[in-house]
Amino acid sequence: MNRRKFIKGAAFAGGATAVAASTFPAPAISAGKKKWNVVSAFGKAGLLGQALEEFAKFVTTASEGKLTIKAYHAGELVKPFEAMDAVQSGAAQMGYGAPYYWAGKSDSISFVAAMPYGLTAQEQNAWLYYGKGIEQADKYAYNPLGLKFLPMGNSGNQMGGWYAKEINTVKDLNGLKFRMPGLGGEILKTFGVNVILLPGVEVLPALTSGAIDGTEWIGPAADMGKGLHKVVKNYYYPGWHEPATILDGFIDMNEWDNLDSSLKEIVKRGAAGMNLFILSRFQAINNNALQKLTKNHGVKLRAYSDELLKAIGNRAAEVLPQIASKSSDAKALYNEIVTIRESMLDWSTYAEATFLEARKAAKMRKI
Amino acid sequence: MNRRKFIKGAAFAGGATAVAASTFPAPAISAGKKKWNVVSAFGKAGLLGQALEEFAKFVTTASEGKLTIKAYHAGELVKPFEAMDAVQSGAAQMGYGAPYYWAGKSDSISFVAAMPYGLTAQEQNAWLYYGKGIEQADKYAYNPLGLKFLPMGNSGNQMGGWYAKEINTVKDLNGLKFRMPGLGGEILKTFGVNVILLPGVEVLPALTSGAIDGTEWIGPAADMGKGLHKVVKNYYYPGWHEPATILDGFIDMNEWDNLDSSLKEIVKRGAAGMNLFILSRFQAINNNALQKLTKNHGVKLRAYSDELLKAIGNRAAEVLPQIASKSSDAKALYNEIVTIRESMLDWSTYAEATFLEARKAAKMRKI
Repeated sequence: MNRRKFIKGAAFAGGATAVAASTFPAPAISAGKKKWNVVSAFGKAGLLGQALEEFAKFVTTASEGKLTIKAYHAGELVKPFEAMDAVQSGAAQMGYGAPYYWAGKSDSISFVAAMPYGLTAQEQNAWLYYGKGIEQADKYAYNPLGLKFLPMGNSGNQMGGWYAKEINTVKDLNGLKFRMPGLGGEILKTFGVNVILLPGVEVLPALTSGAIDGTEWIGPAADMGKGLHKVVKNYYYPGWHEPATILDGFIDMNEWDNLDSSLKEIVKRGAAGMNLFILSRFQAINNNALQKLTKNHGVKLRAYSDELLKAIGNRAAEVLPQIASKSSDAKALYNEIVTIRESMLDWSTYAEATFLEARKAAKMRKI
Repeated sequence: MNRRKFIKGAAFAGGATAVAASTFPAPAISAGKKKWNVVSAFGKAGLLGQALEEFAKFVTTASEGKLTIKAYHAGELVKPFEAMDAVQSGAAQMGYGAPYYWAGKSDSISFVAAMPYGLTAQEQNAWLYYGKGIEQADKYAYNPLGLKFLPMGNSGNQMGGWYAKEINTVKDLNGLKFRMPGLGGEILKTFGVNVILLPGVEVLPALTSGAIDGTEWIGPAADMGKGLHKVVKNYYYPGWHEPATILDGFIDMNEWDNLDSSLKEIVKRGAAGMNLFILSRFQAINNNALQKLTKNHGVKLRAYSDELLKAIGNRAAEVLPQIASKSSDAKALYNEIVTIRESMLDWSTYAEATFLEARKAAKMRKI
């Protein structure tokens, strides 16, 4: 198989980009020892960069150096959205990002990341580790790209986004210039939103200049880090478009196949731990950031109106099947996710939502 | 340190039980290879037994046999509630159960398992992997018992329990004979409930004979497996007493200290994966069981009344500090958990609860 044919340029990355393989640090196989480079779409300093460093260290330590992984963060070897190109060209052995970054390569891959009105993080994990979600993502998205998929993080619940003006009704969406990548943006377009795609570094400048009227990003901690609250103040919840977003590790299929069973287990379990740790950390830090935003920075926390949430939800149920019908792989993946969503819907409502409401009664204090 | 002094008999296990160490398969150290036995409080056939087998296999494979772990399930080597005795006596190197099974050994350990009106599973993981919860549980509960703690599973949301008669008000609790272990039972006692502790195998017979008027167990899948629905039909939610329950792995401290860094990483990451996989599986199978219970078995799904949830919640906020005041370790652990609970409370409500409500608008169907 000629894997070069898959290099069509990552989504939002400005078209195809040739990766100069000769400039890469060469991974080596010596005395039965392997070295991998993992190229990331995320910066080194943040929570995701730290977690990737831990993953690389875990694999290296657990394997006693039989597989040494070195992490290269965004921009260190390739631009953020070139990570998958680098792996497909053989210049790196492994990559790290978010599935919808690679939408230009696959009609189905965005469904792996998140589905509007879809699964929560815990439900996504139920899909991945019980419902054969990893195998399905491989079959319908990653294997056709010459890659092996491993989930390696989750944002947890996201926020709805930042708006210069309040939005209350469906009419307020018409003509709005709003940045939202992925499937959520496709739904907003049907309400007359001028959906704009921008790489992360261009979001704050565009918001500041008024080139966009608003943007979604991730959640309170990441959003505050990005400084969005300095420009606009209306901060809406919940994040219907990305109730939780899976982050993806992807490995050159030949490299994966060449690992022995011990190393495969170490890499898989390393990825699973990273998935758990990242979700846990976002969960831990978001509330603190939310309180700082509202108490110290004048941010107005606003709930989307029932009218909006119902109208967008109804539309999502119409539009997503249309998008999924673009290819047999996308259709298959959509159907799998919708099926397991249906099989978990009531339980999350009975068990989690009612508890969160009941819990308010207990005002617990330190002693 | 004389670790024998800690053997006071596990909670609910009917008093101290001497463990006949001489009858155990001897773990061996040969040619730098270690063998551990892990003794479990749970049966082999269920979800937890399968996950423990996977953990043992992962460690053995990832370490290429440098550390071989063999799992012994409930009753195979020792009785369920003797698992910690076996590790403390040196008869096994590792044990597996739920922290409140060992309440007879520690005033603080039940707080590790679950706290009424406390943390959800995702919040518990935030505590464990971000908020230094593992270190705190070690310091205030496990290390004083000569053990190293690793979280190795989570039930996720539990159900409120099974009742022969409907309960609507606080008055209905008075005189009720109800099985509920742990901190939740301590709270119910203050409402005049006759709280009865029974090992798992005695629950169904007691419910059938009328020796108890009701019982909590775990969640729909586990409860249906136990057959509780065949005796009583009123099934209440949410599980205020155990919003999620951590399962514990515990390792003889000397054995832990003798692992090299590679094996420590493998065991820790193996446990983290098991924690994630078990929660994911409970999440996946509970709704299906809930639907079978209500549609095929005549079970009446009932919400606890607001009056009850508020009264019990208020009481929890009074009683838990009293229980935690029994020892400095329990107090320290309670304070840590209450602090991180407070720091996450609003985020879970804004992000998760509002999304679960909004999601109902999108009726997604297969295509």
